[in-house]
Amino acid sequence: MRRIALRLAYDGTNFAGWQVQRSERTVQAELETALQRVCRSPVKLIASGRTDSGVHAVGQVCHFETGDEGPPGSKFYLALNRHLPADVRALGSAEVREDFHARYDAKQREYRYYLLKGRAATPFQRPYCYALASLPPLRLLNRYTLPLTGRHDFSSFAAEKDENENKVRRLSACVFVQEGPYTVLHISGDAFLWKMVRTIVGTILECAGRKADSDELREIMGKRDRKCAGTTAPSRGLFLHRVRYDERIFA
Amino acid sequence: MRRIALRLAYDGTNFAGWQVQRSERTVQAELETALQRVCRSPVKLIASGRTDSGVHAVGQVCHFETGDEGPPGSKFYLALNRHLPADVRALGSAEVREDFHARYDAKQREYRYYLLKGRAATPFQRPYCYALASLPPLRLLNRYTLPLTGRHDFSSFAAEKDENENKVRRLSACVFVQEGPYTVLHISGDAFLWKMVRTIVGTILECAGRKADSDELREIMGKRDRKCAGTTAPSRGLFLHRVRYDERIFA
Repeated sequence: MRRIALRLAYDGTNFAGWQVQRSERTVQAELETALQRVCRSPVKLIASGRTDSGVHAVGQVCHFETGDEGPPGSKFYLALNRHLPADVRALGSAEVREDFHARYDAKQREYRYYLLKGRAATPFQRPYCYALASLPPLRLLNRYTLPLTGRHDFSSFAAEKDENENKVRRLSACVFVQEGPYTVLHISGDAFLWKMVRTIVGTILECAGRKADSDELREIMGKRDRKCAGTTAPSRGLFLHRVRYDERIFA
Repeated sequence: MRRIALRLAYDGTNFAGWQVQRSERTVQAELETALQRVCRSPVKLIASGRTDSGVHAVGQVCHFETGDEGPPGSKFYLALNRHLPADVRALGSAEVREDFHARYDAKQREYRYYLLKGRAATPFQRPYCYALASLPPLRLLNRYTLPLTGRHDFSSFAAEKDENENKVRRLSACVFVQEGPYTVLHISGDAFLWKMVRTIVGTILECAGRKADSDELREIMGKRDRKCAGTTAPSRGLFLHRVRYDERIFA
């Protein structure tokens, strides 16, 4: 058996998220169907993490096992793309060590959240950002990101149904930057709780809207209670940007 | 009656082009249906020019007439967007003089054609460019653009079904530039023949593929025969970028 890792991009718009669910179109199901065609046997795919319904990815990583037949690891993604719908693409592939694990070995996840000011987003922008009639200035938004970096209990920012017992995570980066017309949150951490990025975005927008003191965000975090945080920003603005491992996997 | 001009963006992917056709989904039909809801009476829309099936726009301009009720000209687009599907957006609107004509008054049309090197385009890029396994260098592509600028008979680059009697047009700009990962043709002219931009792109790619002399492109043009030119590049890479008028229409 060989173990192969894939780097993936997908447009989450028409998917009910990553994970296979009966009677819903999911990224995992589309990929497993296509992989079965290439490998000629059923394949079980494991991702660095699930993404929610409507969330996009440009750097998702997953792995699977297959026999020695079939294309070489570095060319596997090209064969796979021939069987994939247009809204999922494999961007690279590689044969990896037999104990590589896309989820457990992931050292850092990097997300981006795209905000756009103005109500006249084009059809090319609308599905990929959260467009707001007005947007607080960058400096004000970044007033609230500093208290979040580092190791904290993020219970206040996790969906109430999040089942992780330990809600302590380490954020290595959390900063808003301007990228062309977009105000983009760059957020990286060892791992994330369910809906954590979107709840952080929603909460920061609310704090900035009333020019709250940055201590207020610290207090919300200290309460460890989802009810104290703001609303969850829509999934269409969120991209899984990159997943980092100790070794370099793709050429 | 008031005459109102609209600036439009649309994702051409799921449209059979601009013009109303029975039993096909077209941009004009979607807009006229939405305008009828806002104006509460049937509306006839006139665009700067038709775009083909699959062609996108970020700066199409059109006009229509309506009564004095309804939103003011400068706010009209906001009301309209409430009734439009996600793949068409009005980006601006303005009341214009009663003899303004989106097509006859247009002084210059500006198109962009997006090329991408590599087979691993993301799902966010694929519908909006022509991705090729290899791409000639910029300098080589631009060897063939210079002979096209100026006033010429473009019969060789018009679809055989193009019904314009006079096929002389004036290109004011025709140049490939690098924009991030894309190699983009910027092409502007007083007007364009049917499929002209896409045939120019296809022909230049073929000439560059065999490093032809730039005189060859001049000869193709001189023949005034579509059969002498190359294939028509796919519509998904083409954007109507801007339409210019003598006056400034939108705030």
